Amino acid sequence: MADARRPVITLLTDFGIRDHYVAAVKGAIIQTAPEAALVDVTHEIPAHDIAAGAWVLFNAAMGFPAGSVHLAVVDPGVGGERRALALECAGRIFVGPDNGLFSFVIDDATPRWIVSLDAPWLRRREISPVFHARDLFAPAAAHLALGMDPTRLGGSASDPVRLAIQRPRPRADGTVRATVAHVDRFGNVILYAAASALAGYVRARAAGRTIHRFVATYAEARPGEPALLINSSGFLEIGANQARASDLLGLRPGDPVDLLPEAP
Amino acid sequence: MADARRPVITLLTDFGIRDHYVAAVKGAIIQTAPEAALVDVTHEIPAHDIAAGAWVLFNAAMGFPAGSVHLAVVDPGVGGERRALALECAGRIFVGPDNGLFSFVIDDATPRWIVSLDAPWLRRREISPVFHARDLFAPAAAHLALGMDPTRLGGSASDPVRLAIQRPRPRADGTVRATVAHVDRFGNVILYAAASALAGYVRARAAGRTIHRFVATYAEARPGEPALLINSSGFLEIGANQARASDLLGLRPGDPVDLLPEAP
Amino acid sequence: MADARRPVITLLTDFGIRDHYVAAVKGAIIQTAPEAALVDVTHEIPAHDIAAGAWVLFNAAMGFPAGSVHLAVVDPGVGGERRALALECAGRIFVGPDNGLFSFVIDDATPRWIVSLDAPWLRRREISPVFHARDLFAPAAAHLALGMDPTRLGGSASDPVRLAIQRPRPRADGTVRATVAHVDRFGNVILYAAASALAGYVRARAAGRTIHRFVATYAEARPGEPALLINSSGFLEIGANQARASDLLGLRPGDPVDLLPEAP
Repeated sequence: MADARRPVITLLTDFGIRDHYVAAVKGAIIQTAPEAALVDVTHEIPAHDIAAGAWVLFNAAMGFPAGSVHLAVVDPGVGGERRALALECAGRIFVGPDNGLFSFVIDDATPRWIVSLDAPWLRRREISPVFHARDLFAPAAAHLALGMDPTRLGGSASDPVRLAIQRPRPRADGTVRATVAHVDRFGNVILYAAASALAGYVRARAAGRTIHRFVATYAEARPGEPALLINSSGFLEIGANQARASDLLGLRPGDPVDLLPEAP
Repeated sequence: MADARRPVITLLTDFGIRDHYVAAVKGAIIQTAPEAALVDVTHEIPAHDIAAGAWVLFNAAMGFPAGSVHLAVVDPGVGGERRALALECAGRIFVGPDNGLFSFVIDDATPRWIVSLDAPWLRRREISPVFHARDLFAPAAAHLALGMDPTRLGGSASDPVRLAIQRPRPRADGTVRATVAHVDRFGNVILYAAASALAGYVRARAAGRTIHRFVATYAEARPGEPALLINSSGFLEIGANQARASDLLGLRPGDPVDLLPEAP
Repeated sequence: MADARRPVITLLTDFGIRDHYVAAVKGAIIQTAPEAALVDVTHEIPAHDIAAGAWVLFNAAMGFPAGSVHLAVVDPGVGGERRALALECAGRIFVGPDNGLFSFVIDDATPRWIVSLDAPWLRRREISPVFHARDLFAPAAAHLALGMDPTRLGGSASDPVRLAIQRPRPRADGTVRATVAHVDRFGNVILYAAASALAGYVRARAAGRTIHRFVATYAEARPGEPALLINSSGFLEIGANQARASDLLGLRPGDPVDLLPEAP
């Protein structure tokens, strides 16, 4: 799992950056793994928005070396019945609540192992029922980053909670219905639709408007005109040159976008 | 003070994250202590809001290993008469302006030492009168993190400035009057009232409304209903399941909340 | 270039902190230079605002040790014709798009070398046309931080793009016309006018109002009254004690401010 390199732990939460909560999690990690590189993914996931967290987590984890640990906490049910999990997918390790936050990660690759963080020695510590990020997930992540065997953290688990993720669906009229996964800070509209599986679908219909341009870069599109492109994670995206495609089209996460084949 | 582990320096300011100021402070630390782990607590303390900074600093520092150094700069009087201090409380080291920023830290534990950062070698450097964070506090913090004896940084000091902190006050009618210390990003209303000292006070009256529920976790409360709980730092808090208690009740820092004993 | 100390890479972008983009860049750096200290300058440069990025970058880089690498990406033309550059100025190394982002750095000191990041081995990698920050600039920055000879990254380049930067201009009436470079989080109005070159200019006229006070610190000025001072980077600034000078005067980047000599 963890190799001989410096341990890496990324953090994704909905804690915001005004309070002490993120620092508290980092302090807890440092108590166990002072040498770890701590990398913030974001703490600005909208409060309790598990779907947004799941998407950003999936995209962020792709870029880190195998063995990196990704701590993710968007946890409206903290202290309740939901399980606490660690799992490995595609060489990366994920730690967080079992509420759907790992949906895209798991949809993309079958986990090699999943454990429920219920080992007595982990639970014997003083754990605030409202701050598992600090008292349960952070120590688990730190130990995993240092190479601990996951079976020491708890029993094997299966069937993690999954959000109802809408993959692209072929339709009778030859189009493919895709779903908006995310709108980023630039107003780019990202579809949960891998470009590699949709070669030839080079136009889109959304919000009553057809997008005819398929470009390689924003700069190729006319300023203010929405265009399709392949984004940096390999997904289809509707972007606009120096404008917010999401505003131009009124699109939000969950909205449908129909992909059309090349005109005959 | 600093042990053999990697030095840790946390940073709390009201500098925001749009300008170069935080990076300038980190650059100055790195010049002296390149191996230190730098951990942001927050830079989003409202501009010049010493009380907010004092609360977040106190909460953040709790979670770090002994020997960690906590650099805190909310400093409307920079370059004026106010002293520059370093002090040790409960094994943690604090560095910043003497304007009340250490009030909660000091209220919680008596400092083991306090020094005024007035050593000639520290002051001999080029110090911008408007950026002590970079030119005075950062070098002091870096040296302390590396284990420098604090007496080398300046003379012994006493009587640091303290904000008028309102601890819980018993009242003639058997209730206890507490004060709102902080409203966090989720709208949780945190009282400066240690739960351990107020066992049996399980109801609250605030803003003309009585809160009857005392829960262990947000998930236990009915959605949208405010409830009392013990927060992750051991303080009484009014929270709400998937809602903002501060908005439901119109509470802000400094507001009174009366705690009531169990109904007979 | 890089000395024996821990490599340092700072990051400045307009990516914001809600998405995975900054983490993706850091992941790419960590793949090559896991031991590097990564320091965020800011990711809140307004989207596509090259001038704002250029100013903050220039100010931030000053404070880091020689050999530090400063990765800067505000890149509306990503994937288009603009060059990708690395250059060294005043002992610091800069990496980013050739669109004016290095204007203040270059205006302040002549680059010792400039290379175009066009080496075949760098370009042979899989490079997303919309994410050069991750796929081109991050690897280049990581290699430079580890001490790679810049000539291995590409051919020598010259004439980097420069913004039309307005230096202070003497006028017939004895005043000097300066330009607002930046308004910071506190509402301080920073002029692109080095105080060292303008000794004796102790008053300013802006927005139809004359500023008569020249102070060393904010605390010296009357609350709410704008005053001139020398900021922490050595530039003239109009600040206000516990108020926003930019709001008091209605000043924004690019606006003119006339500096006046001492009254006779």
